[in-house]
Amino acid sequence: MSTFLERLDAACEASQSLVCVGLDPDPALMPVQDVFSFNKAIVDATHDLVCAYKPNLAFYEALGLAGLRALEQTIQHIRRVSPTAILIGDAKRGDIGNTAAAYAKALFEVWDFDAATVNPYLGGDAVEPFLAHSDRGAFILCRTSNPGARDFQDMMVANPGDAPRPLYQVVALRAMEWNRRGNVGLVVGATYPQELEQVRLLCPETPFLIPGIGSQAGDLEQSVRLGVDARGRLAIINSSRGIIYASRGRDYAEAARNATIKLRDAVNATLASEGHGW
Amino acid sequence: MSTFLERLDAACEASQSLVCVGLDPDPALMPVQDVFSFNKAIVDATHDLVCAYKPNLAFYEALGLAGLRALEQTIQHIRRVSPTAILIGDAKRGDIGNTAAAYAKALFEVWDFDAATVNPYLGGDAVEPFLAHSDRGAFILCRTSNPGARDFQDMMVANPGDAPRPLYQVVALRAMEWNRRGNVGLVVGATYPQELEQVRLLCPETPFLIPGIGSQAGDLEQSVRLGVDARGRLAIINSSRGIIYASRGRDYAEAARNATIKLRDAVNATLASEGHGW
Repeated sequence: MSTFLERLDAACEASQSLVCVGLDPDPALMPVQDVFSFNKAIVDATHDLVCAYKPNLAFYEALGLAGLRALEQTIQHIRRVSPTAILIGDAKRGDIGNTAAAYAKALFEVWDFDAATVNPYLGGDAVEPFLAHSDRGAFILCRTSNPGARDFQDMMVANPGDAPRPLYQVVALRAMEWNRRGNVGLVVGATYPQELEQVRLLCPETPFLIPGIGSQAGDLEQSVRLGVDARGRLAIINSSRGIIYASRGRDYAEAARNATIKLRDAVNATLASEGHGW
Repeated sequence: MSTFLERLDAACEASQSLVCVGLDPDPALMPVQDVFSFNKAIVDATHDLVCAYKPNLAFYEALGLAGLRALEQTIQHIRRVSPTAILIGDAKRGDIGNTAAAYAKALFEVWDFDAATVNPYLGGDAVEPFLAHSDRGAFILCRTSNPGARDFQDMMVANPGDAPRPLYQVVALRAMEWNRRGNVGLVVGATYPQELEQVRLLCPETPFLIPGIGSQAGDLEQSVRLGVDARGRLAIINSSRGIIYASRGRDYAEAARNATIKLRDAVNATLASEGHGW
């Protein structure tokens, strides 16, 4: 059985892409109202261009049980059309030990995600159940892409035996201690390039999930340059609204494909300029 | 329309109880395997004794769509049998602005919870959508009841214009700034009484959701004494496993009732010893 990192590498090599498409169905923005039909058209138009898909569970939960059924169908469809794509359940869960185990079961066994996003505020025992199997990964929230990220994540924390550091760096370092099975990743937003650079310096071999380009206005070239590891890998560049709502007309799937090609090509051009090919 | 605090007060007065029952169905522990039947029997046996019910969504999600259907039925049943009980969706959600709004919609509109637990790590914009309506409340994770709570929540944080404080206190103070509609609560575990006391000193008029008595071994008398406000109110004492798995035989509902009576009486005895009656 391959490890999570091996599967992630294989997904990137197969698609020659670091691009992840965020599948966040919003009835106010979708040109068709059936969530599975919408997702299916997006997936069919993009699966040869991306290493991963990232449904954010909030959008499905907001649609009730029908939304969750559409998520189930979407996951099954991705498995059918793409043997390699990594499925990231963007759920940002975090709870105490036995409850965290129930969330890990939900995300990895019920939903069949390959990886999940996890919130570190509750500490190690909240994260541990997500790291129990080396073929599944957890992306721990480190420095998020939103304005509120500054509220706590940037606060300077006294660090016994070390200089004070912002909380997000303390989280990154602690996450490395938790990484006994090689399946820990970090969420680091594209909207804060200095922080992204700092986290890459602290964690040179850790996969990053990088949201915040496109609609959230993070700079793409900088994010790729600062986010990748020494091999030009291990940075998953996510775009959600910039791809799935590239057109809000009937041509939405074609527009999503074009937006994905444009993003993949831009990422690969930056990689090439830094001497990293496929 | 009543505010969340008025509804919480009314729920406590109607039941003369600060007790909340955590509805956390675990197939390994339930004497019957049908989740709704199990919950219904517990609710029928306890609804006159409690101010609130708190389903933790992890346990329902771990059972897939069938589990979520049972959650839906459970909520509808509680609404039928108890006109006053507060329903707390223990989901510990936290995401960036537009996604947090989708989670708030899911918890308040789709599921019809009166309150939700929310994780503060992503900052103010992740919490704000949960505070948009004064008749619904958010309990922000402050000092959780698990061992891992120490990992980050106790770290000393430099606090411009103030002395350094542990992160959980910084979160408590920031939560007070967010409390423009009077509907902010805090989650403070019973397993750390000193921290509970500190948060009550910082936030004298804030409702606390206090997990961690019973199975997690927090001291009940101390938690009640330190957790209530000056009127002997605003502390919701949650027990999950200690009540719903009080017996794992066929008498589980009767055992849950007896365990709830015992807990309510013990809480009320502590209140009385401090001069607080109903």
